[in-house]
Amino acid sequence: MTTYEPNMVLAEKEFSVVGTRPIRHDGADKVTGRARYSADSFPAGYLHGKILRSPHAHARIKSIDTSKALAYPGVKSVMTGADLPEVSAEVADLEEGAAVNYGFYSRNVMAREKALYVGHAIAAVAAIDPHIAEEALALIEIDYEVLTPVLTAEDALKDDAPVLHDRLLTQSSVLFRVGGWGDEGTAGSTNLALKIISQEGDVDKAFAESDVVVERQFRTKAVHQGYIEPQATTAFWNEDGKVTAWCSTQQLFAFRDHISALLDIPVGDVTVVPLEIGGGFGGKGQGGVYLEPVAAVLSKKSGSAVKITMTRAEVFMGTGPTSGTAMEIKLGASKDGKLTAVKARLTFEAGAFPGSPVAGGSRTMLGPYVIPNAYVEGLDVVTNVQKSSAYRAPGSPASAFAIETAIDEIAEKLDIDPIEFRLLNAAEEGTRQPANGPVYRKIGLVETLEAAKNHPHYAADIAGIARGRGIASGAWFNGSGPASAVASVNPDGTVSLVEGSPDIGGSRAAMAMQVADVLGLKAEDVNPSIGDTDSIGYSSGAGGSGVTFKTGTACIEAAYDIKAQMVARAARIWDVDASEIEYEGSTIRHKSDPELSIQFAELANALNGTGGPIVGRATVNPGGVGNSFAVHIVDVEVDKETGKVDILRYTSMQDVGKAIHPSYVEGQLQGGAVQGIGWALNEEYVFNGEGNMVNSSFLDYRMPVALDLPMIDTVLVEVANPGHPFGLRGVGEACLIPPMAAIANAIYDAVGVRMTELPMSPGRVLDSLNAQVETRREFL
Amino acid sequence: MTTYEPNMVLAEKEFSVVGTRPIRHDGADKVTGRARYSADSFPAGYLHGKILRSPHAHARIKSIDTSKALAYPGVKSVMTGADLPEVSAEVADLEEGAAVNYGFYSRNVMAREKALYVGHAIAAVAAIDPHIAEEALALIEIDYEVLTPVLTAEDALKDDAPVLHDRLLTQSSVLFRVGGWGDEGTAGSTNLALKIISQEGDVDKAFAESDVVVERQFRTKAVHQGYIEPQATTAFWNEDGKVTAWCSTQQLFAFRDHISALLDIPVGDVTVVPLEIGGGFGGKGQGGVYLEPVAAVLSKKSGSAVKITMTRAEVFMGTGPTSGTAMEIKLGASKDGKLTAVKARLTFEAGAFPGSPVAGGSRTMLGPYVIPNAYVEGLDVVTNVQKSSAYRAPGSPASAFAIETAIDEIAEKLDIDPIEFRLLNAAEEGTRQPANGPVYRKIGLVETLEAAKNHPHYAADIAGIARGRGIASGAWFNGSGPASAVASVNPDGTVSLVEGSPDIGGSRAAMAMQVADVLGLKAEDVNPSIGDTDSIGYSSGAGGSGVTFKTGTACIEAAYDIKAQMVARAARIWDVDASEIEYEGSTIRHKSDPELSIQFAELANALNGTGGPIVGRATVNPGGVGNSFAVHIVDVEVDKETGKVDILRYTSMQDVGKAIHPSYVEGQLQGGAVQGIGWALNEEYVFNGEGNMVNSSFLDYRMPVALDLPMIDTVLVEVANPGHPFGLRGVGEACLIPPMAAIANAIYDAVGVRMTELPMSPGRVLDSLNAQVETRREFL
Repeated sequence: MTTYEPNMVLAEKEFSVVGTRPIRHDGADKVTGRARYSADSFPAGYLHGKILRSPHAHARIKSIDTSKALAYPGVKSVMTGADLPEVSAEVADLEEGAAVNYGFYSRNVMAREKALYVGHAIAAVAAIDPHIAEEALALIEIDYEVLTPVLTAEDALKDDAPVLHDRLLTQSSVLFRVGGWGDEGTAGSTNLALKIISQEGDVDKAFAESDVVVERQFRTKAVHQGYIEPQATTAFWNEDGKVTAWCSTQQLFAFRDHISALLDIPVGDVTVVPLEIGGGFGGKGQGGVYLEPVAAVLSKKSGSAVKITMTRAEVFMGTGPTSGTAMEIKLGASKDGKLTAVKARLTFEAGAFPGSPVAGGSRTMLGPYVIPNAYVEGLDVVTNVQKSSAYRAPGSPASAFAIETAIDEIAEKLDIDPIEFRLLNAAEEGTRQPANGPVYRKIGLVETLEAAKNHPHYAADIAGIARGRGIASGAWFNGSGPASAVASVNPDGTVSLVEGSPDIGGSRAAMAMQVADVLGLKAEDVNPSIGDTDSIGYSSGAGGSGVTFKTGTACIEAAYDIKAQMVARAARIWDVDASEIEYEGSTIRHKSDPELSIQFAELANALNGTGGPIVGRATVNPGGVGNSFAVHIVDVEVDKETGKVDILRYTSMQDVGKAIHPSYVEGQLQGGAVQGIGWALNEEYVFNGEGNMVNSSFLDYRMPVALDLPMIDTVLVEVANPGHPFGLRGVGEACLIPPMAAIANAIYDAVGVRMTELPMSPGRVLDSLNAQVETRREFL
Repeated sequence: MTTYEPNMVLAEKEFSVVGTRPIRHDGADKVTGRARYSADSFPAGYLHGKILRSPHAHARIKSIDTSKALAYPGVKSVMTGADLPEVSAEVADLEEGAAVNYGFYSRNVMAREKALYVGHAIAAVAAIDPHIAEEALALIEIDYEVLTPVLTAEDALKDDAPVLHDRLLTQSSVLFRVGGWGDEGTAGSTNLALKIISQEGDVDKAFAESDVVVERQFRTKAVHQGYIEPQATTAFWNEDGKVTAWCSTQQLFAFRDHISALLDIPVGDVTVVPLEIGGGFGGKGQGGVYLEPVAAVLSKKSGSAVKITMTRAEVFMGTGPTSGTAMEIKLGASKDGKLTAVKARLTFEAGAFPGSPVAGGSRTMLGPYVIPNAYVEGLDVVTNVQKSSAYRAPGSPASAFAIETAIDEIAEKLDIDPIEFRLLNAAEEGTRQPANGPVYRKIGLVETLEAAKNHPHYAADIAGIARGRGIASGAWFNGSGPASAVASVNPDGTVSLVEGSPDIGGSRAAMAMQVADVLGLKAEDVNPSIGDTDSIGYSSGAGGSGVTFKTGTACIEAAYDIKAQMVARAARIWDVDASEIEYEGSTIRHKSDPELSIQFAELANALNGTGGPIVGRATVNPGGVGNSFAVHIVDVEVDKETGKVDILRYTSMQDVGKAIHPSYVEGQLQGGAVQGIGWALNEEYVFNGEGNMVNSSFLDYRMPVALDLPMIDTVLVEVANPGHPFGLRGVGEACLIPPMAAIANAIYDAVGVRMTELPMSPGRVLDSLNAQVETRREFL
């Protein structure tokens, strides 16, 4: 590796379509406003649904009287939690991808015994007009017994904390509780839903033998995914018992399965039609079913389709942000720069129901390193705030903020360049992930660190006062899952492709390109679309950075299926054996007889008359996922008067395997950096003492806009994943892991304060600067 | 065969699902009014299109000025024929299924040089409101040079007839013209588009040697398919050049291909979304593209989607009924009841552009018989009326009216029972279709005739004055074509099935049942849907009585594909060889180890964790179509005062192969009889001398209603088709072939007059009765 330019692609070009940058297939629809999003469903005679939400963060619901609302002219149906079936309430394993506790899930969709956060859905109305529905909400009479709320994990773990769920008391024996690091607050805690521990080696001994030890505590606040499109759904419960939901989802089949479970009807009776998605970032994935059961029940009771659209305030207050966290990190190293031990406790606020992403945060935080002795403890704690939901690399941006800040500090103590320090301890092929994780296959962390080290950005001069540079890394393991694809050959030589993963980041183009590359076609010759749950085979969703890998694999296999059938068809037409035929580029030809040669498009046009159409299909659940590693470099300037931090320059480097459509991979890296900048500097849920979110609008919840940002430069480090035919790795999440720590490290470099709490808003930075001055004064 | 009951099924039951009568999958949507038909598309910001139609049956268009219409407030775009591209105008073979002359097709969509019938589309407007669009139509100024119209084939073939198309003059050399039977009118005719001749043996010699000869002339009028849902379409021409049309079609892929050709854009740029179809009967098949190119061009010019919905009058005047015909038949037999020779000339009025169904009428008319000497001549003649379109068994109901009346007369002359006469001359396995047609495989004509002979109806007493009984038979060859199906296994053990043939007669149920039967599931466990042209492989349309055969074959094969994959998956889970596993009912089990057994639904639920989902697919273009034969018995009563004919009793027998869903097969037979009764007794296009249709409403165009009809009894004669795994034959068209002749024969039996002109309306029957009296008077 020699020199790097922003946005350069490092791997050799080996493909005809993969690696190019065609215009996306859905571009015209998107830029002309034609694309249909979830609110753009208008079934005949549909009604408008509105949801009444709790004004209390914690209250027992003694009674609900909906009779006046139902009698209001124009109202067609009213529902409460009592209209949802009592579904399985077993406490299930809450680790990623495992079983779901539908008792909790159902109660988050609509409260039953208790309202558990401000914004918790309590009742709903369907009417002929949205204003009538809203008026009717005001006629619903609820008798609340207001209880004391608990808003933070620290408070929730206190012995005398108000208890959210009796269930967690009675079923504590099934929880995975093991002896803790320290014992404060866990033994008698009734709001602790889960404790998970990963460990390897002898941590205490290793710390004792370490030359340098760093120990810090960190705090992050809940932040929202901030997707532009609010949740909206239209559902129709037909007379024959079949339910159709048109909605915004990253995971149509998970939505189908959850709707089926929450309504207690067979999965085959539910059809989910995914419309375009205006952003999801995890919030419209597995945990994203909020409105669908409500709209469905209102539809069943009224006989009409029902549409519910959230306002922005409802999105903030009624859906899940990521968890707020409290974290403790202790890190040891030898003087030659080798990490020796790590101990971490991650306490994640799940919100009103169990299920924070603490498992993900625990699993990935040590991913970039080799550390022989490790102990990581994760606590999942319920609090009277919104049930947390997934947000891009769930759990990891927070835990990386902690570990990557500590790494920076320990490197500083050892006077080793932070990239060199990471190289000294870098995970690579054959090393085991710390705390007894799996062994890595071929990964590209070292190459990515080298790319950062050699990048002009890292050597560039930062002139000016209170300017600093920080770096941080991040690991994401990427996901796979079942996926299906069906591709039909059209008579003009184009191919219609149907797959089942919603397009959240340009995946239509990526799928089409993979098919085109296999078949020797152009990207625009393949017309990709997303099926609904009735029209495509099971496909796990757009999440876990897995779509281009798993659904792409299905597309590749479907293309190979077409290829084989085209060869067989040519063999049949020419009356030769298929083994005598080769397919090269877009030409199907006899290996020895030059007379026998036909173009894909020519043969496509002859299919119907020579045995019938050709349709390729594939169903997969591929192994061989490639992990992805990110290294970010950021320059900041701190205004010491106000505490405001400006991002001067930002470079995101990532081990992306093979970039199918480099522009969209770059877009992922850029988007991740921007979301990270917002998370680092401004975004947070601000609650008053009663648990009321006081900044539930985009005016008050400050997300970064273009004026806040420099151009985000990217470097795609293409270290092929040996587990995929094209060598690709998922790219969507690793890029959101380093920003907060990188910016914190840059702030330290600029002004010498270690920021340990997010967001690093002007107030907090100013407080830290003032504390620094105080500390200096004390020394004087 | 012993005794028959109405609606009984004759074959042995061998299936678990096939042959049963489950509730149709689309039933709830249809009966609750939820089903979306073509007018139920509402893309955001769509405009309303209206079409200006010619008031002249024949006129040269000297100029069109649309400027005032375009300037009218609310009007967004205006188009004329000049906006359609000049597409290939080669005269192509007009036989069924062959190439299409897009020069003519395009000019039927919108007139260019000439208006050729009253109702011919001349220009169109898209506006924000349908009333504004209508008002704007009145502002379009057209300078017509009115020409003399020619309304019947007889007039069109006269030497001095006005000429519709110069093209037919200049290109006459490429027409298939051979020496005619007689020479009147054909040599110099310039409105003759095609003459086709089929012949075998020495007809003149055979007539000379016959013991009895019958010779008659017949006339039938144009009749409309009478579908309840008018044509409607919504089209959107996107900025990226892609066109989507939501429409009512029997053949989504043919629509796609025709729209592509008519707009001169690649077929891969056209998506056809088929909505529910409220009847088509051929009129929404191959020739049914009327509105789509117009809406598309208006969309391109305006930038918005455009919807056009026909009124009933537009349906009558702007779409194609079947041809009016003039037919001559000469039939000879020996005194022992054997047919010796047949000579026929069928002159079909194509309407404004070539392409009547004369080929179909010629091909099928002799289908039920063995006749060693035969000569059949078919003429396709253009006239200044609506371009004819397909109507259920295209061409055959008319030609069967002629031949089956003549057969009745010759049987009478020989004093042989008409069923016995047909049995004496019946086609069967191994006989050749007359006039040098193909040799039959296993067919069920004899069994169907026997069923009629033994049916209680045939022996029942008809008491009363002027009552009579008639029988007639009919042959239809049925169609096949390319078809695709994709079926996905859901985790609850249900299967989602997607196929590409619109459901015009219960085919969703028939497809689901075939899949269910293969997999050992219940019919309701399979959820069938119709894809659009982007989401399913090429599938030829719902026409030619081919859907249950061809698309059903694809469904069966897709189900077998699932079966094989389920067996392979079980083998993988159990770590045994797939050959050791059997699939019986819905159980997948090891052949010898009783421990290894799993139900379909159990395995379905385990798929994602054991290698991925399972999707079956098949693409076919199957041979082995089974011909179908119908025999109808009808009792009538003639009111000799008014000429009104009442249908007293009606029994429809048909060789249906295997009835997948007997209720829908019976429904086909009943519907065919009812349409035949309307055609026989009331329906006709009535034109004034200027070619203006004077009965273009359902009030004046008299279709039969329930009050006009008895219960139509049916007998399904299940003679398995050896060319299909389940033995099925197409059933949708044979049942419309015999009614007119059967009723004519019944009228003869009742009052002794041979009716040779359709419809046999009260006036015509009265005229015939009066003529009979005149004839008797003359004899006196």
